[in-house]
Amino acid sequence: MSEETSGRTVAELAALVGGRVRGDGAVRINRVAAFDDAGAGAITFVEERRLLPEALGSHAACLLVPSGAREESSAAAADAADGPALIEVARPKLAFALIAELLHPPKRHAASVHPTAVVAASAQIEEGVYVGAHACIGERAQVGAGTQLHTGVIVGDDVRIGRECVLRPHVVLYNGVELGARVVLHAGVCIGADGFGYVRDEDGYRKFPQIGSVVIEDDVELGAHTCVDRGALGTTRIGRGTKLDNLVQVAHNVQIGARVVIAAQTGISGSTVIEDDAVIGGQVGFGDHARVEAGAVIGSKAGVLPGKIVRAGTVQWGVPVRPLDEYKRLNAHFGRLPQMRAELDELRQRVAELAALVETKAD
Amino acid sequence: MSEETSGRTVAELAALVGGRVRGDGAVRINRVAAFDDAGAGAITFVEERRLLPEALGSHAACLLVPSGAREESSAAAADAADGPALIEVARPKLAFALIAELLHPPKRHAASVHPTAVVAASAQIEEGVYVGAHACIGERAQVGAGTQLHTGVIVGDDVRIGRECVLRPHVVLYNGVELGARVVLHAGVCIGADGFGYVRDEDGYRKFPQIGSVVIEDDVELGAHTCVDRGALGTTRIGRGTKLDNLVQVAHNVQIGARVVIAAQTGISGSTVIEDDAVIGGQVGFGDHARVEAGAVIGSKAGVLPGKIVRAGTVQWGVPVRPLDEYKRLNAHFGRLPQMRAELDELRQRVAELAALVETKAD
Amino acid sequence: MSEETSGRTVAELAALVGGRVRGDGAVRINRVAAFDDAGAGAITFVEERRLLPEALGSHAACLLVPSGAREESSAAAADAADGPALIEVARPKLAFALIAELLHPPKRHAASVHPTAVVAASAQIEEGVYVGAHACIGERAQVGAGTQLHTGVIVGDDVRIGRECVLRPHVVLYNGVELGARVVLHAGVCIGADGFGYVRDEDGYRKFPQIGSVVIEDDVELGAHTCVDRGALGTTRIGRGTKLDNLVQVAHNVQIGARVVIAAQTGISGSTVIEDDAVIGGQVGFGDHARVEAGAVIGSKAGVLPGKIVRAGTVQWGVPVRPLDEYKRLNAHFGRLPQMRAELDELRQRVAELAALVETKAD
Repeated sequence: MSEETSGRTVAELAALVGGRVRGDGAVRINRVAAFDDAGAGAITFVEERRLLPEALGSHAACLLVPSGAREESSAAAADAADGPALIEVARPKLAFALIAELLHPPKRHAASVHPTAVVAASAQIEEGVYVGAHACIGERAQVGAGTQLHTGVIVGDDVRIGRECVLRPHVVLYNGVELGARVVLHAGVCIGADGFGYVRDEDGYRKFPQIGSVVIEDDVELGAHTCVDRGALGTTRIGRGTKLDNLVQVAHNVQIGARVVIAAQTGISGSTVIEDDAVIGGQVGFGDHARVEAGAVIGSKAGVLPGKIVRAGTVQWGVPVRPLDEYKRLNAHFGRLPQMRAELDELRQRVAELAALVETKAD
Repeated sequence: MSEETSGRTVAELAALVGGRVRGDGAVRINRVAAFDDAGAGAITFVEERRLLPEALGSHAACLLVPSGAREESSAAAADAADGPALIEVARPKLAFALIAELLHPPKRHAASVHPTAVVAASAQIEEGVYVGAHACIGERAQVGAGTQLHTGVIVGDDVRIGRECVLRPHVVLYNGVELGARVVLHAGVCIGADGFGYVRDEDGYRKFPQIGSVVIEDDVELGAHTCVDRGALGTTRIGRGTKLDNLVQVAHNVQIGARVVIAAQTGISGSTVIEDDAVIGGQVGFGDHARVEAGAVIGSKAGVLPGKIVRAGTVQWGVPVRPLDEYKRLNAHFGRLPQMRAELDELRQRVAELAALVETKAD
Repeated sequence: MSEETSGRTVAELAALVGGRVRGDGAVRINRVAAFDDAGAGAITFVEERRLLPEALGSHAACLLVPSGAREESSAAAADAADGPALIEVARPKLAFALIAELLHPPKRHAASVHPTAVVAASAQIEEGVYVGAHACIGERAQVGAGTQLHTGVIVGDDVRIGRECVLRPHVVLYNGVELGARVVLHAGVCIGADGFGYVRDEDGYRKFPQIGSVVIEDDVELGAHTCVDRGALGTTRIGRGTKLDNLVQVAHNVQIGARVVIAAQTGISGSTVIEDDAVIGGQVGFGDHARVEAGAVIGSKAGVLPGKIVRAGTVQWGVPVRPLDEYKRLNAHFGRLPQMRAELDELRQRVAELAALVETKAD
């Protein structure tokens, strides 16, 4: 496909994202690019208006800009007759993401089962499924239409996988796990291992039963090596549209709502609940039976005590978590402890002098 | 097997756990269940007496309750003639775990070597071993009777694995690693990778030799993606009956005793010693050459400095760790820093006024 | 090979490391050993002079000691006529590492492609390459001479791997990733998974494009299960000679310089830069767009805020990071908060008494 006919025109992309073209709508765009790496055929974006003057000097073929930004930069605009074509749009970064999906669709493998894969006779594989080399699919497992199981993916017995999922190399689904549609699991994700529950007796620890399951709802994406343990007796659940980064630990019976985001290396102890639309930083630790109400935001490295309730919509940091304002105030006080110590010493000295003076005069 | 003949009777289960039947000992039980999910054929448990009245209204077929609890709840008991059968036992949760082992034994694969597995001719495989698809067993490796090596498990050269172990998919044992009997390794566990040791020279870092080994004793269970590095020159060791959660890091030459539990994402630096019966929370970090004496408890997210000794039986939290009482007291003071600041300011003002008064009168 | 002809003589080893023999240069050495585990045929080392007297009583056949140390320990030396041969050298530990490389070279597999491996016809495999069982090599991938791809390694399409690399079992390289020469990746390392970037719209999160790449330069070593995400639009890069421990998370577009060391379970958020020769502890968390200047040292469990610049050569600890001196001072003040509280209360009391006295006299 030649450069002249590949990709889409600026006008087509503007229509896709509901934007307005300024400049030559016939320019062809075939890739997205970072601002400082954009050249011929590339589209990039500016989210902040203050960066617009600089952006107009970009070598990009097309620039997504905030609506109305063009008029505000009339001086710059005058110079930009030969600059990039512009698409004005309410949310340039979101538009950029949509255009990237169009111009850079994820590679898909053709429907096929690699001869080295091991698929149980009782497994049900719908149409359009790709099963890569050395993948294994267990007894009675169901794999939905169009799903891609990459090299070395292991699907246990009685697993159910929805349509159009992508499981990257070496993902492991233990027996009985359930995935919705369009779930993306990166390399090494492990779902359904035993939760960490034991009962102590005289000789040591006996396993508390870990015989529940895991349900991962539609449109969830889990990062590399993230672990989601099966419920002890009930179900561990991750809600629709939720995204977890790499190396996250989700313990037994945790309930994560819809559209939650959790950054890397965070760990969530048993039975904790994270409600819809929460935003959780990296390396956060949750004790068991905690609850994060809807829309709360928890800063990276925070610690949430067992049973703690983080109120809806609040922003909390620290170990243990506190409202961000309070966290900042306390940290500022902490940093000034030496000064406070000095003031206290000085004041003691002053009081001692004063006392001496008073007592002298009292004589 | 029909519902009428499957499972065990209440009387049989009571005998197993040394409990006493109250109600119909002939009722058949075929599954354990969570309290609020228990129905026909299910047994559940109540650990705390105060929950007993509610529990007696459960739809469970059988309820494990603390010894003597029945008498204390005589009012409730009167109503419970058609409620669940009861088994009174000293430790209901422990009894529940024992019954779960009986009613829900882990699935075992029949002894077999999958045709896609690659087993070295010099490996010694005892009777009853299962070797799953795409597993690999190295030269001179020994695999004990009844051990289950799941799909994609990799056993290096000269590895020794005891009897009745279960290695879940994609476990990797580097050359020379040694496992005792009944060891359970969850998916992705990696044992025997090089420790992190280098010597700096003019050009950069040279590897300090990482040529020791790893010994995992009987009845150890390691969670998904947990890593145990080989000793630099000596041996990294995890003692009998110890349980590690997911994503734990155990560095070279670490010595972990018997019956230790360590929650997810904790990291233990080189040569640190954790003695028997210690209990370690999640996301704890240990510097190198630290020592946790027997039975100590360390709270989640704590930090233990290099060389630190945590005394036997103490409970410690924080970064760096302190005794829990002290940790709580300091945290309370920390939270009141703004008030302390205000009091100090007020007192300065008061002293200034007083000084002015004294000096005025001194004139 | 008999004990008499295996290994090297003390004189040969001394020549290798530029050291000076004291004692019998003809003694044969065939292994390195830890100090307290050294016996016949073994060489060990003493780095600290104060340990030399004890060391001279070692059962080792040869001892690497600091230059000049022998003279300083003349008393001990007198007794050591039948003790170990000595090699005096400027840096005994470094010399020990060099000798270990010679005596314990890593096992190498002969050049071969295992019949169960799946290698794309378009892949270019140079001479001397080992491709283990169940390994997969994608379309147009290039594998440099002498590289060892262990069991179950997955090399994506268009990946480039340099010479003499060692990829341990189950390493996953996503499409397009690039490795230099002599790169060592331990089991389960995952390079090139999607970075964690989304744009929120009305319905939830849409993926921001994660279509950049990853470059791992020469002589890098990455620990087990460490994850390096691909750039969103640009490239994630790890510089020459850098060493990462196990379970480290490197997010999209991170730039790590040369000869950096990073201990286990540290996480680095997007676009953060860590310059040459930095030393980073374990469980450290970096916010995005932070910068660690050359040679800085960051203590374990520290937290670096987004956008923070850690100055070259400084040593910083804590959450958020502070210079080590300040961190220590503040921690000391923190530990004395109860005392400060008591002093403040006492001073208030004193001032109240004084005020009463003044006011009484004022009457």
